[in-house]
Amino acid sequence: MRQLNWINQDVISTINMEKNDMEQVFDVADTLRPVAEGREKSRALEGKILGNLFYESSTRTRLSFESAMLRLGGGCTGFADPASSRAVTKGFEQKELLDDMIRVVEKYVDIIVIRSLHDGSAELSANYASVPVINAGDGRNEHPTQALLDLYTIRHEKKNIDGLKIVQLGCLNVSRSQRSFAFAVSKYDVDLVFLSPKKYAFGRDALNKIEKNLGHKPTVVTSSKALPTIADADVIRVTFGIQPINARTLQKAKNDLIVLHPLPRGPEVARDVDSTPHAVYFREVFNGLCTRMALLSLILGSVK
Amino acid sequence: MRQLNWINQDVISTINMEKNDMEQVFDVADTLRPVAEGREKSRALEGKILGNLFYESSTRTRLSFESAMLRLGGGCTGFADPASSRAVTKGFEQKELLDDMIRVVEKYVDIIVIRSLHDGSAELSANYASVPVINAGDGRNEHPTQALLDLYTIRHEKKNIDGLKIVQLGCLNVSRSQRSFAFAVSKYDVDLVFLSPKKYAFGRDALNKIEKNLGHKPTVVTSSKALPTIADADVIRVTFGIQPINARTLQKAKNDLIVLHPLPRGPEVARDVDSTPHAVYFREVFNGLCTRMALLSLILGSVK
Amino acid sequence: MRQLNWINQDVISTINMEKNDMEQVFDVADTLRPVAEGREKSRALEGKILGNLFYESSTRTRLSFESAMLRLGGGCTGFADPASSRAVTKGFEQKELLDDMIRVVEKYVDIIVIRSLHDGSAELSANYASVPVINAGDGRNEHPTQALLDLYTIRHEKKNIDGLKIVQLGCLNVSRSQRSFAFAVSKYDVDLVFLSPKKYAFGRDALNKIEKNLGHKPTVVTSSKALPTIADADVIRVTFGIQPINARTLQKAKNDLIVLHPLPRGPEVARDVDSTPHAVYFREVFNGLCTRMALLSLILGSVK
Repeated sequence: MRQLNWINQDVISTINMEKNDMEQVFDVADTLRPVAEGREKSRALEGKILGNLFYESSTRTRLSFESAMLRLGGGCTGFADPASSRAVTKGFEQKELLDDMIRVVEKYVDIIVIRSLHDGSAELSANYASVPVINAGDGRNEHPTQALLDLYTIRHEKKNIDGLKIVQLGCLNVSRSQRSFAFAVSKYDVDLVFLSPKKYAFGRDALNKIEKNLGHKPTVVTSSKALPTIADADVIRVTFGIQPINARTLQKAKNDLIVLHPLPRGPEVARDVDSTPHAVYFREVFNGLCTRMALLSLILGSVK
Repeated sequence: MRQLNWINQDVISTINMEKNDMEQVFDVADTLRPVAEGREKSRALEGKILGNLFYESSTRTRLSFESAMLRLGGGCTGFADPASSRAVTKGFEQKELLDDMIRVVEKYVDIIVIRSLHDGSAELSANYASVPVINAGDGRNEHPTQALLDLYTIRHEKKNIDGLKIVQLGCLNVSRSQRSFAFAVSKYDVDLVFLSPKKYAFGRDALNKIEKNLGHKPTVVTSSKALPTIADADVIRVTFGIQPINARTLQKAKNDLIVLHPLPRGPEVARDVDSTPHAVYFREVFNGLCTRMALLSLILGSVK
Repeated sequence: MRQLNWINQDVISTINMEKNDMEQVFDVADTLRPVAEGREKSRALEGKILGNLFYESSTRTRLSFESAMLRLGGGCTGFADPASSRAVTKGFEQKELLDDMIRVVEKYVDIIVIRSLHDGSAELSANYASVPVINAGDGRNEHPTQALLDLYTIRHEKKNIDGLKIVQLGCLNVSRSQRSFAFAVSKYDVDLVFLSPKKYAFGRDALNKIEKNLGHKPTVVTSSKALPTIADADVIRVTFGIQPINARTLQKAKNDLIVLHPLPRGPEVARDVDSTPHAVYFREVFNGLCTRMALLSLILGSVK
């Protein structure tokens, strides 16, 4: 089976990742947990620099990448929001200027992490960059590292991803993290269910890719109520657009159902879920750190 | 006498610090002066990460903490102003969301430093965080590390804090640094004077705590003129709200009076004071770096 | 010949740099190329801290300095735009407050890099700072490190600066980088041509300095068309204000003409120039990193 060599790879989409590739990231992530916790020191990426280009502001994702780099002994530069970048204030995010920006920043850093309001901007950046580019969210398109950390969380909590019933709930076709997750999880042998309001179901193009990955059709339910789909689910991945999940809703779920959410949460996950055993979304944050440390280590060549 | 074990302690208020605890910080600060000056290298906090959550922008305090961490070999992440944080732009600073933020950021860092517009937000953060939290100013409530650096400056300049006549001038009840300073300095055997416009005097609740600490009543003067109170003072701590202190005013003061100010200054300290021997407020900035290095070292366990 | 000792030197203007001084920077820059590329590690500036005070936002210059410091093992603090600084939001950039800011930040760092909207603010900062100050652009006055990286690029591409015909095109008298470049390049034995619209020619004061440096008069052409001046040029340095340079224009140029631009570019350099051998402006970015690493190394004393 094909095995991706992660060295110098861009991470733009999950569509081109095979199960093996992802499992490799998760294996490395497992080994890095003591470093992520600050209990062990690492200089694996000493002298390396990560450049954060956040055209859309972020807390979770940016801090997660910065912490990942710092835990491994590396350094960070970049901008946290458009206002800090001169180019942006001069009307940056047009295609013709992003390439100039990339051809500048690539000279300063070993890897670029970009978040942008525009679909496709990460891929465009990768086309111009001589260093690897990680997509930290491009418009409504993809957010591949979020998908990886979701899957890593499932593996960490459930030991195995294969064989599970996994439900994605919310306005799916406008959620970059739901799209990346669907492309990634469909590489596994899972029972996959999509629940969304009709208007927000995945389009034909995305479904075709997912079906091809799965080898069969996912179940598509259009409704704004979570209830009918979660009764026998092992995992639900929730984003905005459905009737809120709350502790009462979850009483009808399997005891070991886990609830994933990329955060920050809106009303779709009630706060009384936090104290149930189903809530893993805050543990996901730590898993995200481990996942990004693993990616950086693999891409920058500090893991063989 | 009770001796605080600083390891993993939150720093929310000065009210729960004993003289011994503070003196321990100052002793450590003394030993770190060559590292703070950049003359000696330290890797005491290598691999450790500080997370700056500045919901209110700052120069002095944020840079001071970052420099403290860097001088000790550690790293920093976080945000410098609300605009850089996605959560904030979605209406963050409500109680229900601060806890989510804390439960995210605690996964990335070893210690959190938070500045906020809202009284009590640092304490709330500490209640949720599994890592230590330092209050870098919460609304009009407290700014404990500023108080510690003020006291460290007095000790450094005067050798002893006990026995001094110390005057706090300005709009005291709306100043977080004046409140924290009063709670801290009243643990010493000092002659304490509060001068403020009547409307801005410390309230009964604060005065009760201060009296309990002192073991006697502080002198309370309500006036907007500094003059009557500084004649025999050893230390004056000035913030906004009184008639400006200037070189002429200080001619009537003791030769070795020192003037403290948290900066940035407004009109309350005239620029002609800078060239008098009374001005120590710029030296305070360096002392602040040493004080914060000491706190970080103690809390993160690199000092026994 | 006078040889500048770079240790602890401010970098405010190119006017006081001799050819020898600049060549020393370029020699050091040459040796640091493998470190700048991330192929070799360095801890030359471990424990040192650079403070970025960017009152005007920037991408290139700020990230370049941060990367330079990180590649050499040092750390960075500061602010990336005025909004992140408390002082600024309270009406900072008045002369009377900049000195206060400098007397604070100098306590936290080993070197200050300042960009400001106001002419002369870097020099003012240097007057107050006990640590070295680097001017990263002060209003329309100077941008000396940009000039140094331009010259280093010429030396790197052409081996020698002496003997070349060098043309500066654009609105020269309002361009800080053109002014700094003119002061610097005129220390070499070059044939120097200034082309600008009449209204934007260098003033008498600048011309006097340049003539004194050169030992003869530069050629001054007032026009908004680049064409007449580039036919036999070896180097053209382009900024806004002239008819765009494009691939067709350059067909009439010497084969080995190089085009310099400080970036970000406006319409003055058409995108079809990028694929010609004349375009060196993206390579300049990497040279800028090397130049700034050299400056930091020399000033902070890690190169003997």
